[in-house]
Amino acid sequence: MERNIQEIISQMTLEEKAAICSGQDFWNTIPIERLGIPSIMMTDGPHGLRKQEGEVDHLGLNQSIPATCYPTGSGLASSWNTGLAEKMGSMIGLEASAADVSIVLGPGVNIKRSPLCGRNFEYLSEDPYLSGTLAASYIQGVQSQGVGTSIKHFAVNNQEYKRMSVDAQVDERTLREIYLASFEYAIKQGQPWTVMAAYNKVNGEYCSENTRLLTNILREEWGFEGAVISDWGAVNERDLGVAAGMDLEMPSSNGVGSKKIIDAVQSGRLSEAALDQSVDRILTLIFKAIDNRKEKGTVDHEVQHLKAREIAGECMVLLKNEGDILPIGIKDSVAVIGAFARKPRYQGGGSSHILPTRLDTVYEELVKIAGADARIRYAAGYPLDTDTIDEELIQEAVEAARQSQVAVIVAGLPERYESEGFDRKHLQLPDNQRRLIEAVAAEQANVVVVLSNGGPLEMPWLDNVKAVLEAYLGGQASGGAVADLLYGLVNPSGKLAETFPKKLIHNPSYLNFPGDGETAEYREGIFVGYRHYDTRDVEPLFPFGFGLSYTQYEYTGLQLSHKTIQDTDRLNVTAKIRNIGRMAGKEVIQLYVRDIESTLPRPSKELKGYAKVSLQPGEETTVQFELDKRSFAYYDTKHQDWIVETGEFEILIGSSSRNIELRDTVAVESSTVLIQTITRHSTFADLLQHPLGASIMEAIGQHEATDNTLGEGMDELILNTSLHNASMMSNGLFTEETLQSILAAVNN
Amino acid sequence: MERNIQEIISQMTLEEKAAICSGQDFWNTIPIERLGIPSIMMTDGPHGLRKQEGEVDHLGLNQSIPATCYPTGSGLASSWNTGLAEKMGSMIGLEASAADVSIVLGPGVNIKRSPLCGRNFEYLSEDPYLSGTLAASYIQGVQSQGVGTSIKHFAVNNQEYKRMSVDAQVDERTLREIYLASFEYAIKQGQPWTVMAAYNKVNGEYCSENTRLLTNILREEWGFEGAVISDWGAVNERDLGVAAGMDLEMPSSNGVGSKKIIDAVQSGRLSEAALDQSVDRILTLIFKAIDNRKEKGTVDHEVQHLKAREIAGECMVLLKNEGDILPIGIKDSVAVIGAFARKPRYQGGGSSHILPTRLDTVYEELVKIAGADARIRYAAGYPLDTDTIDEELIQEAVEAARQSQVAVIVAGLPERYESEGFDRKHLQLPDNQRRLIEAVAAEQANVVVVLSNGGPLEMPWLDNVKAVLEAYLGGQASGGAVADLLYGLVNPSGKLAETFPKKLIHNPSYLNFPGDGETAEYREGIFVGYRHYDTRDVEPLFPFGFGLSYTQYEYTGLQLSHKTIQDTDRLNVTAKIRNIGRMAGKEVIQLYVRDIESTLPRPSKELKGYAKVSLQPGEETTVQFELDKRSFAYYDTKHQDWIVETGEFEILIGSSSRNIELRDTVAVESSTVLIQTITRHSTFADLLQHPLGASIMEAIGQHEATDNTLGEGMDELILNTSLHNASMMSNGLFTEETLQSILAAVNN
Repeated sequence: MERNIQEIISQMTLEEKAAICSGQDFWNTIPIERLGIPSIMMTDGPHGLRKQEGEVDHLGLNQSIPATCYPTGSGLASSWNTGLAEKMGSMIGLEASAADVSIVLGPGVNIKRSPLCGRNFEYLSEDPYLSGTLAASYIQGVQSQGVGTSIKHFAVNNQEYKRMSVDAQVDERTLREIYLASFEYAIKQGQPWTVMAAYNKVNGEYCSENTRLLTNILREEWGFEGAVISDWGAVNERDLGVAAGMDLEMPSSNGVGSKKIIDAVQSGRLSEAALDQSVDRILTLIFKAIDNRKEKGTVDHEVQHLKAREIAGECMVLLKNEGDILPIGIKDSVAVIGAFARKPRYQGGGSSHILPTRLDTVYEELVKIAGADARIRYAAGYPLDTDTIDEELIQEAVEAARQSQVAVIVAGLPERYESEGFDRKHLQLPDNQRRLIEAVAAEQANVVVVLSNGGPLEMPWLDNVKAVLEAYLGGQASGGAVADLLYGLVNPSGKLAETFPKKLIHNPSYLNFPGDGETAEYREGIFVGYRHYDTRDVEPLFPFGFGLSYTQYEYTGLQLSHKTIQDTDRLNVTAKIRNIGRMAGKEVIQLYVRDIESTLPRPSKELKGYAKVSLQPGEETTVQFELDKRSFAYYDTKHQDWIVETGEFEILIGSSSRNIELRDTVAVESSTVLIQTITRHSTFADLLQHPLGASIMEAIGQHEATDNTLGEGMDELILNTSLHNASMMSNGLFTEETLQSILAAVNN
Repeated sequence: MERNIQEIISQMTLEEKAAICSGQDFWNTIPIERLGIPSIMMTDGPHGLRKQEGEVDHLGLNQSIPATCYPTGSGLASSWNTGLAEKMGSMIGLEASAADVSIVLGPGVNIKRSPLCGRNFEYLSEDPYLSGTLAASYIQGVQSQGVGTSIKHFAVNNQEYKRMSVDAQVDERTLREIYLASFEYAIKQGQPWTVMAAYNKVNGEYCSENTRLLTNILREEWGFEGAVISDWGAVNERDLGVAAGMDLEMPSSNGVGSKKIIDAVQSGRLSEAALDQSVDRILTLIFKAIDNRKEKGTVDHEVQHLKAREIAGECMVLLKNEGDILPIGIKDSVAVIGAFARKPRYQGGGSSHILPTRLDTVYEELVKIAGADARIRYAAGYPLDTDTIDEELIQEAVEAARQSQVAVIVAGLPERYESEGFDRKHLQLPDNQRRLIEAVAAEQANVVVVLSNGGPLEMPWLDNVKAVLEAYLGGQASGGAVADLLYGLVNPSGKLAETFPKKLIHNPSYLNFPGDGETAEYREGIFVGYRHYDTRDVEPLFPFGFGLSYTQYEYTGLQLSHKTIQDTDRLNVTAKIRNIGRMAGKEVIQLYVRDIESTLPRPSKELKGYAKVSLQPGEETTVQFELDKRSFAYYDTKHQDWIVETGEFEILIGSSSRNIELRDTVAVESSTVLIQTITRHSTFADLLQHPLGASIMEAIGQHEATDNTLGEGMDELILNTSLHNASMMSNGLFTEETLQSILAAVNN
């Protein structure tokens, strides 16, 4: 419906304008009946709906209505499947639409800087390209149902410790190449209706009053046209927020926020034009939600559940499968061990915690698949509510394992280990689970460990077991999905979207995470995740992009459309992939780019493309990638732009960041000319590199003084002398006047 | 002689005052005859005298007079012997005194941040305690001869690339604990006559005009009473230098510096009092040099040379000795391979490059020791002036090796690889030497590699050879010292004062060294050297403190004087060490301290004591260490002081940083009470930690809202909520007024 929003704004009082910039309660915007402005509702996401039932309470803690729980971010990202992300988004959008919810709060695209971050289970990846592109698809999926999204938490909200006040100190290049890039890809490609401003500060300024982030970068550079919503309670000074482009304060601040806005406008500290702009964006959002609302359908929870199982099956990662112990034969006797096998861990704690419509368990689903002849035993193995080792439970488990051909241990992190609101303390399983695995593995050679957790674990027991299936937090149907994978009804196709380090102390942020409580220094810079492990030669437990299958793939025929390009050209890359095993499967093909030589530190490779293909045994297909300037560029802080350095780049095609199958080289010519200004503190070497430098050096005969009483290499010593210092110590041989004439000659 | 320096100053004209603040030429101060102020001379050091002969030229490049060349800093530090450092200092002081030199420019105590730093061969260690204490002894040695020293380069001058202009960006804690600490120990214990201000900037300000470094820290905090001299040509703005405490500009700036001072005083930009203070310090220095001048003796170069050989023998580090292939039997046939065996590499390039009084070679000294029955062949193996592989030389070498029982390959870095003025590009030997080692090792099982180089090398060929002796740059007698060690006339007792990484990319500064040409970001912070490798679990090639002997030692009987101390108390630590082998030897016992638990990141261990003992076979001795507050402290940037956190500390006694033989624990009670201020952005957890917090939390009943619809762990989520944000999102349950009353209660 066409509406003249400017006309509506012109009819609003200052009080009404200020009011509509805050929530009415925990979930709804403020309606203004006299102007025909309705209220819209938003609820937590991102992997299912957390819509509170009944009256909205003051803290958002009421029981929520049942909703389908899909895999959390860690799992979704492991699918490396944009189509699947879109599908999952559309199904969540469908449920939201049916529940009259206008905006789902998600996706979460903060970069997994440290595996300890308590909220990593909600986030996607350590890589901004993977995270941002998957998020874009998820956003498109949700929004295809006439429901908006709120990409979060903008920005650099990578820890829970002191999340509401910590000052993330990040250099500009790192901000651009890593932390903002994840948002940039998602926002440009996905066009979310809203962006959620994070609690924390970035380089000294609260995100919710950060003009540079919310206006200069988000809107002016990236072209975002939607509204910015505060994370719940993330407003610091409300009027500064409006000035910075933080439109909607959530939840209600009980009048505090609107009063501050009114005072600021009346005192002249805040222009009414800035307020009008926020009101404009909020009204646009509200009416967009109303206008896009679909006819209310009914949701078939059975269908949604089956879809959730299918999705979950593609989100799990087979990390180890020694001697092809998996899949398990349908007639094999199996000991299913671990309390999680009957009381699953399938989602994380905090605002994303939802009430599922139903809940599969690994044990029951295995029994169902095995059917009448099932020879499946169960033993709890460990208590769920404590880390204390229970030897009796362990002995039962060992006994069950001994009587079976295979032992499947369902292990993982209890909910109390992983939640919004606090960070993990270490990467270990609870003691009682570790002890269980060791005890069972000592008696039974065929041990399969299934893990339910939101992020990496250390696995000191890895050599003792034959298989490991990382199920992540797979949602309400994860039990069924695990059973499908264990029996081979589904072929594993997930790949890690994050590095599993051998030890936490190998993580690049280790010594600077979570900081001192006031600041978090991002000293590792751009070297996050595999950018660190691969560049610094630190052997991970499992690398980024890694995941096994029950079949094998062959990579051949890498072709580049050009051997030389301008950085403004596109490069097309194709490669062939063939299923050379005996089971149908899906493979994730990854494209990394490496700058062979650069004047500044760059990662040894960076993901710039990926594709997931489905192949029958013997089938071959060609995958195609298109690379653009950004694929080769770094962010240049001096020029405040993405720059490609002229030179050769390697195109790497691999099945993980550490398993590169094909490689070729392209020469890229930069479209940018960078000339260094020569100052009195430049060296003779700088001068020589300048287009005019060689002739000037010759003219002043700088080499005359060189001899060898100081040893060899004195030419280089002199080249590394600054002009200023040469003038200070040459005692008249190289005068200030000479210096000035050089500067004049070279800089004009 | 008693003089009234104030009286002299009062008679000086402004022009005279300004004049005396710069050198007369390259090496001498300006004399003022009418006031009886003489000129004094300074010359380069630090491991021997570089006094130019004849007339002083304008660039300091003339041939210098012969002087004894001792091991450079890398070698000296490997002795871990303060007595030896003092002895070496006193012998250099003796030569200086005999040559009428008043100040020797050294020692160099910059920390070895990266093994690439071109000048590392002149510096001592990656550890500030080892570096600072050895330097103190060296200083005392030189100054015992009535000759001054100039400790350099103050400060944070850890690279040659852009050394004259680079801005070293270092956080305050790292500055204090690592980069300044090396100077602090040396200056407080050694009392050098002068300090040399470095070329570079630190955190944006040139060292030569840095009030914080030259006045606040150096003089006010550390009590330094001498003069500050500029590195040669390091003056930026001369008047700002005087204001900051940079007393003497060297060399002459041809009147430019004094003119700037005069202008600044006349225009009021610089107070004459500040100038007077610099003049005071310069006059004090000049008269101190005159008054301390010893009666001119003659130097017996033969004695000096023998001493240089003895010192060098203690500075070399036996890195590998498989199957006790060393020492070589006096009657064994030996192929001595490598051009360095006859044309030794024994010192580095640049200002420390001296003309030796004589020069031993490994080949000749081996022949001399072996005597009449010597069966020693020589083959050059590689050319010295190029990296090109010469297959003919290699074949000769292989043939010589084949005909001998043992092959000794003398390898290392050509002078063009290592010098003041530029950094190394990598840690490899030249290609032709690497190829030589591989070729010889393929034909001869008994290969001993002797290395002549100023800093760490990667050793891809390590597994192919039986022994490696790191001879460093051992000075003019290094050939004899190597021969002594190879034949077992001297038992190796050096230990590495720096970590040898397996690969350069493992070094903590790797991605940030040498920076972008404008700044060098010290992002690794305090985690330099073994503080990085040990804390991050990165396996080195050879760890800090490592070195083999021809005998073995047994460590027993660790005793601490107390189990609990106040941080203001001293802790005495004793341990027993016994020579359980069959040869007399010297062992370096190292004491490291580990803070078992701390609220901020600390290294997994830090060197806080060491001792070198000499033991006959079967002999046992007790070594004693005294630890003080500093041994347990970190530098607290908020309190701007050294602080000990109450808790348990491990006392580790080892033969290297990675081989800890004995350990015990002491509980240290802090004398500092740190109470955190509670603000509106503090969390409930912060509040609970406050002495009054628990009762306040109880009073406001903050836990009531908790339930489990958000999953487990919600108590912790709420604890991590900031008071401000709680007030923003509780919609009246936790009001701004409650918040204000809490802040009032807790902060009063």
